[in-house]
Amino acid sequence: MLRTLGAELFGTFWLVFGGCGAAVLAAGFPDLGIGFAGVALAFGLTVLTMAYAVGGISGGHFNPAVSLGLAIAGRFAWRDLVPYWIAQVLGAIVAGAVLYAIASGQPGFTAGAFASNGFGDLSPGGYSLSAALLAEIVLTAGFLIVILGATSAYVPGGFAPIAIGLALTLIHLVSIPVTNTSVNPARSTGVALFAETDALAQLWLFWSAPMIGAALGALIWRFILTPGDALANLGGET
Amino acid sequence: MLRTLGAELFGTFWLVFGGCGAAVLAAGFPDLGIGFAGVALAFGLTVLTMAYAVGGISGGHFNPAVSLGLAIAGRFAWRDLVPYWIAQVLGAIVAGAVLYAIASGQPGFTAGAFASNGFGDLSPGGYSLSAALLAEIVLTAGFLIVILGATSAYVPGGFAPIAIGLALTLIHLVSIPVTNTSVNPARSTGVALFAETDALAQLWLFWSAPMIGAALGALIWRFILTPGDALANLGGET
Amino acid sequence: MLRTLGAELFGTFWLVFGGCGAAVLAAGFPDLGIGFAGVALAFGLTVLTMAYAVGGISGGHFNPAVSLGLAIAGRFAWRDLVPYWIAQVLGAIVAGAVLYAIASGQPGFTAGAFASNGFGDLSPGGYSLSAALLAEIVLTAGFLIVILGATSAYVPGGFAPIAIGLALTLIHLVSIPVTNTSVNPARSTGVALFAETDALAQLWLFWSAPMIGAALGALIWRFILTPGDALANLGGET
Amino acid sequence: MLRTLGAELFGTFWLVFGGCGAAVLAAGFPDLGIGFAGVALAFGLTVLTMAYAVGGISGGHFNPAVSLGLAIAGRFAWRDLVPYWIAQVLGAIVAGAVLYAIASGQPGFTAGAFASNGFGDLSPGGYSLSAALLAEIVLTAGFLIVILGATSAYVPGGFAPIAIGLALTLIHLVSIPVTNTSVNPARSTGVALFAETDALAQLWLFWSAPMIGAALGALIWRFILTPGDALANLGGET
Repeated sequence: MLRTLGAELFGTFWLVFGGCGAAVLAAGFPDLGIGFAGVALAFGLTVLTMAYAVGGISGGHFNPAVSLGLAIAGRFAWRDLVPYWIAQVLGAIVAGAVLYAIASGQPGFTAGAFASNGFGDLSPGGYSLSAALLAEIVLTAGFLIVILGATSAYVPGGFAPIAIGLALTLIHLVSIPVTNTSVNPARSTGVALFAETDALAQLWLFWSAPMIGAALGALIWRFILTPGDALANLGGET
Repeated sequence: MLRTLGAELFGTFWLVFGGCGAAVLAAGFPDLGIGFAGVALAFGLTVLTMAYAVGGISGGHFNPAVSLGLAIAGRFAWRDLVPYWIAQVLGAIVAGAVLYAIASGQPGFTAGAFASNGFGDLSPGGYSLSAALLAEIVLTAGFLIVILGATSAYVPGGFAPIAIGLALTLIHLVSIPVTNTSVNPARSTGVALFAETDALAQLWLFWSAPMIGAALGALIWRFILTPGDALANLGGET
Repeated sequence: MLRTLGAELFGTFWLVFGGCGAAVLAAGFPDLGIGFAGVALAFGLTVLTMAYAVGGISGGHFNPAVSLGLAIAGRFAWRDLVPYWIAQVLGAIVAGAVLYAIASGQPGFTAGAFASNGFGDLSPGGYSLSAALLAEIVLTAGFLIVILGATSAYVPGGFAPIAIGLALTLIHLVSIPVTNTSVNPARSTGVALFAETDALAQLWLFWSAPMIGAALGALIWRFILTPGDALANLGGET
Repeated sequence: MLRTLGAELFGTFWLVFGGCGAAVLAAGFPDLGIGFAGVALAFGLTVLTMAYAVGGISGGHFNPAVSLGLAIAGRFAWRDLVPYWIAQVLGAIVAGAVLYAIASGQPGFTAGAFASNGFGDLSPGGYSLSAALLAEIVLTAGFLIVILGATSAYVPGGFAPIAIGLALTLIHLVSIPVTNTSVNPARSTGVALFAETDALAQLWLFWSAPMIGAALGALIWRFILTPGDALANLGGET
């Protein structure tokens, strides 16, 4: 169990350090910055790479909402849920701290929003609470469907990290302007602690909306999409 | 059949919500926006991710033109064509509505073209009807050849969603300036309903051209490229 | 043989139409254009997608220099070389023509360089003939090493199109400023015919340098890198 | 052994020529330049492509810190360490020289930083020595965990180059502003020799920090993450 929780801790550290690190350090660099597209790619690649690295150890959730959705879908033991959440949030907070240490090594540094999530005044594009809620729910639901489908028996072994990682990239390509994209309560928590804004006061939405979305996605998978038989097969093999 | 149509509905929802969502919400964000390249990546990743997730259930068409082309190529039952089309268009319209609900949560929102497709005055680059027609036909034909080839016995199981998703990215990298890129009548319909422009009046082209292109691609595959024998094999295995 | 040459013709059409299409239509679109990075991605994805689609039929060369290198490396029959070259150049020219037809559908269109390759005054960054020669030789040599290695027995089936397509993306990320990137005489020919510049007068370099580079890469592979035994294996399996 | 060292030499050549070439030649091209995101993609693709090409011959390290970490993790023979280091540094220096020859073919060329790594005044964003040290250590440690995990028995054959190459892309997306990203002493050396800045005087950090980070990652893998049993398996196969 220590090894498993270690994998979740390191994996979530990598997700927050890599994804939020790209946002804080590189997104807005003058002229050559990577922009929202580069941040979207970075978030996706954190999951793609760590799912290959330690997915075989812990399942590679790196996200409390994903763990919840997998439990609802019957793919993850309920008794492991809280230990996973603790490891994930811990990894995220350590990532926020290390990122802060690096970012503050630039002359004139101010933390600002520090890649935290937000709505209303704290949304990058000024989107409302209800828009933020809807976006986070829909995108987390879709994320869970991709995760559950890509790890089902339909898909040959080894492809799941590609599908899941790039789904996270896609989700960021859509929604960074709306909420700075969470779909992951640990990620939201890890950097909100270091933000100079009121990000902590909005953290409730970035716990509740991804959790609701993950539950919704898991239920859609379980009651609508779950294959009754496994005879049909993915296009690549027909 | 309900499960199958559910997969097409959710998949097409994801395609339109993800691809058009990236276009509407994130493409033109000041300084950090993802641009046409980010939108191209988003469209491709919607297909890559959902083809892994539900491709094993429905085949992962998410596109009426693809369903038609597969039927012409003998890979899809003609009797399922209209049900698939209905599920796809329904999923696309729901995606347009959800996207509208989110996008309108930004102060000062106006729908504008709302990522709809167009030619002439409604083409992003002002391209003519004939340029739009030619681009949509050629690109959909190529798309079908990639789909038919990547799901043939030549390619080891599991790679098809990568080839097909990234083909859609490529198609967008080329043709967003011309028509805002359709190659998918459901995608065009789902957002045209919400555009403030005359997008609906041009919708005929984005049904006819992808259909013609898909038929053309399927015929090229069936009568020119279909392997007589399957002894030769992809480079990766020689 | 007709099927094989058809595969090379369509594949090279796709390479030139997709890659040069992205360059001509989308690279410099105001504010939202895809830039050199988008063009680099497009070129790579043409090869990735068509290698999956028709690689099992013709080997998926789409490039006279690649065919030559494979022949030198003992992987391709010398007697098929000239027929392949003809099919490739034909596909490239048709692609140039179709692209011209679409591009000229924009009001105020002028062909300009039309994504052709060049050095000196015709180099995007004004690079000299010797810089162009060196870049094309080195990059084509590296391209052939990737092709030969990724299709060797070391690599499990199905991954070669990813490695080879993304190698072409990499090559473009480096050298578009130098020569607009050829490493493919057919690609250079297909658009030079439609350029308003003196691109045709420089075409000799974009036939000779890729050919020399391909030969060099094939010789390095054959005499230095070819494994004496196949016991060792790729990291993923150790 | 000659073949093995040749593979490391060519691979490291490709890494430095491709990655630093993209940075020097294409990153800052007016209007259409590839920016930091394009450079990050280029670095990752050098490793992805060459790991497929020659990974089966030498293991595909292309990086002295990776070789050290693999030795510490028990995956690489200590006696081969110094020969590998020599081949890697040699390949990197040749790449720097060839790149210099091409880059100097542009009128008005000045080498400037020539894609070298640095901290303080030589950091792209002016980051301090301690920020540079921390970033290089943390990112190289994560890189090694990805390498060790992706090449473990958990992951089906053939995926490792994707995970490892894209990990390098991720690392660059985060840290180009901090140190111009090393995590590879050979890469730092190969271009520092040609820089007009004091890059050579800072080279000690780009040897020590990646080495420390690689050792740290290898130890974390070996003592915390190494699976006791291999019964569990990656999501894609459950």
